[in-house]
Amino acid sequence: MASHFGDRLCEAVRSKNTPLVVGLDPVYSRLPEAIRSHREMNDEFDVGSAVDAIFDFCTRTLRIVAPLVSAVKLNIAYFEKYMWEGVETYYSIVSEADELGLEVIGDVKRGDIGHTAKIYAAAHLQNPEFAGMEDIITPDAITVNGFSGAEGIIPFADVANEQGKGVFVWVRASNPTAGVIQNFADAEGKKMYEKLADVVGEIADQNKRIGSHGYSNVGMVVGGTTAEETSLLRKRFDKVWFLVPGYGSQGASAVDCMRFCNKDGMGALINASRSIIYAYEKPQYRDQFGDNWEKCIEQAAIDAKMDLAKAR
Amino acid sequence: MASHFGDRLCEAVRSKNTPLVVGLDPVYSRLPEAIRSHREMNDEFDVGSAVDAIFDFCTRTLRIVAPLVSAVKLNIAYFEKYMWEGVETYYSIVSEADELGLEVIGDVKRGDIGHTAKIYAAAHLQNPEFAGMEDIITPDAITVNGFSGAEGIIPFADVANEQGKGVFVWVRASNPTAGVIQNFADAEGKKMYEKLADVVGEIADQNKRIGSHGYSNVGMVVGGTTAEETSLLRKRFDKVWFLVPGYGSQGASAVDCMRFCNKDGMGALINASRSIIYAYEKPQYRDQFGDNWEKCIEQAAIDAKMDLAKAR
Repeated sequence: MASHFGDRLCEAVRSKNTPLVVGLDPVYSRLPEAIRSHREMNDEFDVGSAVDAIFDFCTRTLRIVAPLVSAVKLNIAYFEKYMWEGVETYYSIVSEADELGLEVIGDVKRGDIGHTAKIYAAAHLQNPEFAGMEDIITPDAITVNGFSGAEGIIPFADVANEQGKGVFVWVRASNPTAGVIQNFADAEGKKMYEKLADVVGEIADQNKRIGSHGYSNVGMVVGGTTAEETSLLRKRFDKVWFLVPGYGSQGASAVDCMRFCNKDGMGALINASRSIIYAYEKPQYRDQFGDNWEKCIEQAAIDAKMDLAKAR
Repeated sequence: MASHFGDRLCEAVRSKNTPLVVGLDPVYSRLPEAIRSHREMNDEFDVGSAVDAIFDFCTRTLRIVAPLVSAVKLNIAYFEKYMWEGVETYYSIVSEADELGLEVIGDVKRGDIGHTAKIYAAAHLQNPEFAGMEDIITPDAITVNGFSGAEGIIPFADVANEQGKGVFVWVRASNPTAGVIQNFADAEGKKMYEKLADVVGEIADQNKRIGSHGYSNVGMVVGGTTAEETSLLRKRFDKVWFLVPGYGSQGASAVDCMRFCNKDGMGALINASRSIIYAYEKPQYRDQFGDNWEKCIEQAAIDAKMDLAKAR
């Protein structure tokens, strides 16, 4: 396995023949009946049962999607809901995904001034050296909030470099009113997110961060819902991997998202979370597979993969 | 105790007669010899011993500073370094600080699109209802990263309202190059952080968020190192509490920081972290108190309090 994150993404996208990423945002009350029913009635208040159910659901989902997708993304918010028990579960699932050979992205959106960014970077990207935690792996990459500028981003990029890992800096969000802040423009019409992209791009383009396939281990998160206005980013930052949320439940189309790929089909990861992991809630899949929730998820992942392939 | 966070801060600042907040950023290798020496040699790799030492140090520090300060701030990065064990320790210390009657701020800088912001808000501001976690309290307030705009801030503000708690949105960072992003200016010279402050201010000013002392439970984090350029924020947002980092180790003076107070002395919390909790590393205190690290911390807190009082 290549020790450079950008290289590993190229290999994953090539071997799986898709930029599709499945995002795990597990909400207990939406888990399949079958996962919840053999547990206690009061499950939601029994933190042990709740995180067991989430672990069960996520690891079974990982086994279904592992042959189909290039990476998985775990949003830590959904685990932090279960306090430290949830954080332990997050790391257990990261480690399971790693065992399945998947690239794993921790969607943690951490960010602070440089001094503290260094601490966050070590916490989230270095595998723990503590006795009893030898089996625990941190993600291959994490998402970072770059609000404090280069000083808050470089510590993450440097730890990523040391560890053969990566970071995706949140440059343009997928939510409807993010533009109020992120499209704030200067006298020349340059937008704040473009300025942030310049800062990230400069860090990403440093020679030491570029792998043998020509990509950096420093990427950007750019919402698929903003594809039209952000299409210039792809041209300007040709060595950068874009992590593109918004496909599926948030309304970005396959065409919107595939614009972030370079001509060789590399350079973009397209994430779908709720539209795949909760596929069994949708009549189109329920009618076909009934209570077989795993089949529903598998079919939804196959459909998303086909949808993206057609838009290439 | 008032059930509105802004009111509780007024009462705390009045009764303690200071806006001083002590920040806990515990780094194992900097803990006092006495805290580390009675533990194993390999402490740093024995996560249980490490978090025990951190818990011991933090709770003893809390008892020293409790009569002197209006609030304490815990930066969760320093706890996440110890994985889920560290997160459990974070919550144990939050609960201890609450028992001492202190207002507790969780410096977590969480932020995401609205859907996920709601999950983070519940995780970090609602006390857990899980069996076995009845003794665990979440902080009185947390810091929030508002990069995604109003949609990413309102869910935190709403949970704060429901729970009698507060949020501080990170508006202007204290680090030297944050201005590259945050001072990005439009054609009229308005800066990006001012735009963000407008968004936060509009949420903060809503009637339902204002307490009986006239302050909102939605505040802003503004670095003391930027006092000159940000002094207009105090005038524009008279109902807002400012959480002001940068005093002490980061170089902001007492005068710089006290500018964020309203005329009545309310409306600003001035945070010092490393300059107080590691006071025993400084010759000025070591010469006076030798190995008595608790005395060093106490004196540093008293000195900081006096320094701020003189600048009033």
